[in-house]
Amino acid sequence: MLKPWIEAQARLVEVAAGRAPADMVIRGGQWVNVHTREVLAGHDIAVADGRIACVLPDAGANIGPDTQVIEAQGRYMIPGLIDSHMHVESGMLTPAGFAAAVIPHGTTTILHDPHEIANVMGLEGVRLMRDESLAQPITMLTQMPSCAPSAPGLETTGHPITAGEVAQAMGWEGIVGLGEMMNFPGVAAGDPAMLSEIAATRAAGKVVGGHYASPDLGRSFAAYVAGGAADDHETVAEHQAIARVRQGMGAMLRLGSAWHDVAAQITSITEKGLDPAGFMLCTDDCHAGTLVHDGHMDRVVRHAIDCGCDPLIAIQMATINTARHFGLERELGSITPGRRADVILSSDLGTLPVELVIAQGRVVAQSGRLLVDCPQIEWPEAARNSVHLGRALTAADFRVPATGSRATVRVIGVVENQAPTQALTADLPIRDGFVQSEAEVARIALVERHRGTGGVVNGFVQGFGYQGRMAVASTVAHDSHHMIVVGTCGDNMAAAAARLGDLGGGITVFRDGVELAHVALPIAGLMSDRPAPEVAAAAEAVNQAIRDCGCTMNNAVMQHVLLALVVIPELRISDLGLVDVTRFEMVDVVMSSA
Amino acid sequence: MLKPWIEAQARLVEVAAGRAPADMVIRGGQWVNVHTREVLAGHDIAVADGRIACVLPDAGANIGPDTQVIEAQGRYMIPGLIDSHMHVESGMLTPAGFAAAVIPHGTTTILHDPHEIANVMGLEGVRLMRDESLAQPITMLTQMPSCAPSAPGLETTGHPITAGEVAQAMGWEGIVGLGEMMNFPGVAAGDPAMLSEIAATRAAGKVVGGHYASPDLGRSFAAYVAGGAADDHETVAEHQAIARVRQGMGAMLRLGSAWHDVAAQITSITEKGLDPAGFMLCTDDCHAGTLVHDGHMDRVVRHAIDCGCDPLIAIQMATINTARHFGLERELGSITPGRRADVILSSDLGTLPVELVIAQGRVVAQSGRLLVDCPQIEWPEAARNSVHLGRALTAADFRVPATGSRATVRVIGVVENQAPTQALTADLPIRDGFVQSEAEVARIALVERHRGTGGVVNGFVQGFGYQGRMAVASTVAHDSHHMIVVGTCGDNMAAAAARLGDLGGGITVFRDGVELAHVALPIAGLMSDRPAPEVAAAAEAVNQAIRDCGCTMNNAVMQHVLLALVVIPELRISDLGLVDVTRFEMVDVVMSSA
Repeated sequence: MLKPWIEAQARLVEVAAGRAPADMVIRGGQWVNVHTREVLAGHDIAVADGRIACVLPDAGANIGPDTQVIEAQGRYMIPGLIDSHMHVESGMLTPAGFAAAVIPHGTTTILHDPHEIANVMGLEGVRLMRDESLAQPITMLTQMPSCAPSAPGLETTGHPITAGEVAQAMGWEGIVGLGEMMNFPGVAAGDPAMLSEIAATRAAGKVVGGHYASPDLGRSFAAYVAGGAADDHETVAEHQAIARVRQGMGAMLRLGSAWHDVAAQITSITEKGLDPAGFMLCTDDCHAGTLVHDGHMDRVVRHAIDCGCDPLIAIQMATINTARHFGLERELGSITPGRRADVILSSDLGTLPVELVIAQGRVVAQSGRLLVDCPQIEWPEAARNSVHLGRALTAADFRVPATGSRATVRVIGVVENQAPTQALTADLPIRDGFVQSEAEVARIALVERHRGTGGVVNGFVQGFGYQGRMAVASTVAHDSHHMIVVGTCGDNMAAAAARLGDLGGGITVFRDGVELAHVALPIAGLMSDRPAPEVAAAAEAVNQAIRDCGCTMNNAVMQHVLLALVVIPELRISDLGLVDVTRFEMVDVVMSSA
Repeated sequence: MLKPWIEAQARLVEVAAGRAPADMVIRGGQWVNVHTREVLAGHDIAVADGRIACVLPDAGANIGPDTQVIEAQGRYMIPGLIDSHMHVESGMLTPAGFAAAVIPHGTTTILHDPHEIANVMGLEGVRLMRDESLAQPITMLTQMPSCAPSAPGLETTGHPITAGEVAQAMGWEGIVGLGEMMNFPGVAAGDPAMLSEIAATRAAGKVVGGHYASPDLGRSFAAYVAGGAADDHETVAEHQAIARVRQGMGAMLRLGSAWHDVAAQITSITEKGLDPAGFMLCTDDCHAGTLVHDGHMDRVVRHAIDCGCDPLIAIQMATINTARHFGLERELGSITPGRRADVILSSDLGTLPVELVIAQGRVVAQSGRLLVDCPQIEWPEAARNSVHLGRALTAADFRVPATGSRATVRVIGVVENQAPTQALTADLPIRDGFVQSEAEVARIALVERHRGTGGVVNGFVQGFGYQGRMAVASTVAHDSHHMIVVGTCGDNMAAAAARLGDLGGGITVFRDGVELAHVALPIAGLMSDRPAPEVAAAAEAVNQAIRDCGCTMNNAVMQHVLLALVVIPELRISDLGLVDVTRFEMVDVVMSSA
C-alpha cells in the first residue's frame, strides 16, 4: 500500500541527497519531461516508498545491495498515462479486471465514474467500486455519480442518488469529484438539486465533471458553465471543444470503443495552435475487446499522434494536464520528485510501444504481460444477486394487446452507428387480441429487475434484421439497467429473460429455445469477475450469435443496451412505458387499431 | 464582501441563462483568453455578485435598470494581474497601503509572505497582516512564514515561528500556503522541524513556497526538491529556472525594485521554446517609490514583453499560470464564469496601459486613480510599540574595546549592487581603550529592540563612503529586524537610535546631532500607515540625506538594512555578535591588537 507523501517525505530527502539507497533505480533513460515539454537524454530515476525521490544524470549513489536496478538502455521514460474520464462498467469488468487489462498498456491512473452500478445499487455500489479501486496497484480514483436516474420521472432506477449522498461521498477517501453532470437542462434551469450536488463537490474542494451534450452554444451553454462544471468530454467538433476551453473548462477529447472524437477536435491544437494546457484525453467507454486487442490510453495517445499532434503534447494531454485539472499535480502526472513512481519505458515516441510499466514503484507489466495481482473485493450478496424478476416470465408476458385486426404502432427505429433512434410507425396485424410482429419489426420488452415487481413493458423495434425465432436479452440497459429483451418470439424472449435471472445478469442470445451464446455479468448485472480476455471472447461469441440470427448491423449489442437510454432522442423504452425523448413524455405503443 | 462561489452559484446561472439582470455588463471588448491564449474580439462580460456570470458576444439581455454598463469600446479585457510571491513590508506599507498603491496598476491578487513582521511579532503579526489583507477590495492571500529566525543560533528574532504554529495557521481563512522555505540547507539535511512545516502545509492541501538560493544543482538541490517545495523565485539564470520547472516546481521570475531576474530567464520561453505553463511572474520586494513611479505587476508584464515575450504568454504568467499553481484556477486568474470579476481594460497589449481596473465586480481604479477605500485595521499597541531599547543609549554604547595602540579588526565590506558582503580586515588605532574608526571604515552597531535587553553589538563596516560626524539607523534590519546603526560618530549613532525609539521605528539620518531626514515606520518598526506617495517621498528624502553624508552608493538603504541578514555571505552582524556567514559561526571583531 502506498504511503502518503507526508510519511515518505523524510526518506525521499535522504535518497535524493544521496545519503540512502533507493528501492529502485532506473538507469540511463531519456526523461520525457511534461513540465517543460522536452526530452532529456541520460537521466536516472531513483524511487523510494513508491515515489520518485530524484531524477538526475547519475543516481548510482542510490544503488545499494537491495536496490532493484532497471536499465532503461536509452529508452524513453514516460509518465504513466491517465484516463481523465471513463466508466469501468463499460468494459464489463470490475475495477480489478479493468486494471489488469489496462496496466500492460501503460495506464497507471484512472478517473472513473461508476454511474452504471449507482443506478443498480446506489451509493453502496459506488462504495464497492471505490473499495476495489483503492485496492489496485495503480491509481484508480472515483467520481461520485451525479445523475441517477438520468431521466427523473421517465424511468425508475434501482437506487436514486440524492444531493445528500453526493455531499456524503465527497468526504470519502478515493473520491476525486463529481461524475459527469449530465442533467444539463436541469443545471441551466437552475434545478436546486443539481446545483446542490455541484456546490457540495466544490465545497469539498473537488472537481465537477461536466456533460453538455447539446450543440447550442448560446445562453443554455452559458448557464450550464455558470453552474460550475469544470470539464466536458461530450464535445464532438473542434468548435465545441474550443468553446469549452475558452470558458475555462477542460476539454476531454475522447477515443472509446465506439467514440471517435479526437481527430475532429485535436485540430484545436494542431491547426488552430491553441494552448494545449486545457485539453485532455479520455476513453469514456471501452469494451473488453478493445482493451485486449487495441489498448487503452496508449491507443488514444497513439491516435492523437497519428492525427498530427506533437507526441510530447499528446503525452501531456494524458498526464500532466489531467493531473493539474484534478489538483493531483503534486501526486502524479510527471516524473518528478514526490510523485508516484509511474513510469513507462518505450523505445519510440511516435508509435509508443509499452515495453515496461512501473506503477507506484513496482514493475507491474512487461512486454504486454501483467506481473502483479489486481485484487478483487468480496462482492456482497446484494451485488451478486441483483436480478429480481419477481416471478417466472412466460411468452404471455411479451405481448402487446389490441382490439380489431390491424394496429398502427410506434416503433423504435435503430440506426447503424448512431446513438439517436428514430420514432417510426408500423401497421401490424392483430391476432387473438395481440399485435403481431412481422418482417423487419421485432418485439422489445423492458423487464423490471431491481425491485422484483414483475413488470414488463412491451413495444416494437426495427433495424436489427433478426430472422427466425430468437431473442437477445441484456441486463446492461443504460442508464437504469433493468433488462432489455429484443426478439421475434415470446417463448425465446421469456427463455432469454429467465436465463439472465439464473446467471445473475449478462447478455444472452437464444434461437429456437436454445442459448447460442452468453456473457455472464453476475456483479450488479453489469460486470464479470472473469479476466478481460475471457470476457472479450464471450462478448465476441454473443456478437457472432447475433450475426447468426441475421443481424448485419455494426455493434448491435451497443444499440441494444442503449434502447432504454431515455435522455437521447427520439423514441426509447423504460420501465414506465414508451418514451418520446423529443418531448420527454410517455406515449402509447398502439396509436390506433381497427 | 465577496460571497463564496457556492452562495453566488444560483444567481450566476440565472444571469448566464439571460433570465436575470447582471450587476455590471462590460460591453464590446476584446476578450484576452488566457486558457486558449487567444484574443477574441466582440465580447461582453456579465457580472453578478462580484463574479463573472458569462462571457458571450452579446450580454444585452442582462442589462436591467440597475445594471452598471461599462463600454469597453474595443479595448482589451485582460484578467487582473497576480503577484505570485512578495513581501508587503518591503514597500514599507501595510496591506491596505500596498493595495491602494497597486490597484491602479491592475494588480487584483497578491500572494504575500509577511516574513518581516513574523520576525518582530510572530504568529500574531501574521494574523494582523492576514486580517488587513482580507479587508481589501482585491484578493490578498497570505503565505505563512516558514523561517523565523532565518538563521537559528546565529540571531535572536522577536518571535520564533514553530512548526506547530505553521500547522495552526494552515487552518486559517486567507492562508494560501507556506512562505518561502529559505532554510534550504535544513531541508536538504532532513531537519525535522523544516520537513514538519512542509508536511503540515501539504496535509492542509496548500502550496509550499520555495527558496533555494544556491547555484548547486546536484544532490543538494535534489534533496531540497524532494522535501516538497512547489516553487522558487530565487533563480537568477536561465538554466536555474529551467532546472526548477523540469523538477516539477513553478519558476517565479522576479522583477522587484532591486531584483532584475526576468530578462535573464525568460529566454527559457522566448529562445528555448519551453512550455510556459510552469513559469510565473512576481515582484518579491517592491519599494513604495517603485509602486508610485513605475508600477507593480503591470511593470513586470511590460518588462517581459519588452524582453521579447509574446504578450499573451506574459499575461498568462501573471494570471492563469499562477492561479493554477495555487489551486485557485476556479476562483480567479481568467475571465471565465464563476471567477472573481477581476478585469483590466487596456487599449494596447504591447505597452499595457492600465485604463480601468475592476476587482470583484467593482470599478476600483481608472486612469491611475484609486476609486475605492482600502481599509486599515486598528493596529494594536503591540504592533505600534515594537521598539524596546530598554535603556537610554549613549555614545559609550557604540565602541569596540581593545588594549594596546593598534588593532586588526574584521570589517564588513559592502559592495555596490550586490547582496553578499566581503569579509575584510583593517588596521585601526586604539585610543582610550577603544578602537577608532577612520577614513573609509565606519562603525556599525546592532541594537537589540525586541526584548529591551539594552544589548548593543559593535563592529566595523566599509564601503558607504560616509563623511563628517553622522549616523544612519534603521529598524528595518533583515531578517530579525532589530536596529542597525551605521555611523562615524558615537553621539550621532546614539541620537539616531534614540530617535527611532521615539518614532516607534523607521529609518533616520543624523549629521552633527541634527536629523536630516526620516521615514517613520511605526507599525512593527517596518511599515508606515501613510499612503505610498508620502512614504515614497520620505524614503527619497532619506536617500538624499544619505547622499548628503557623502555616500554615492546606489541603493545605500538596501545595503544598510541587509547588514544583519546572517544567511548571505560573507560577514554580517547580529544581536549575538559578528557572524562569519561562510562558516555559519560567530567571530570576534578584534582579531589582534598590540
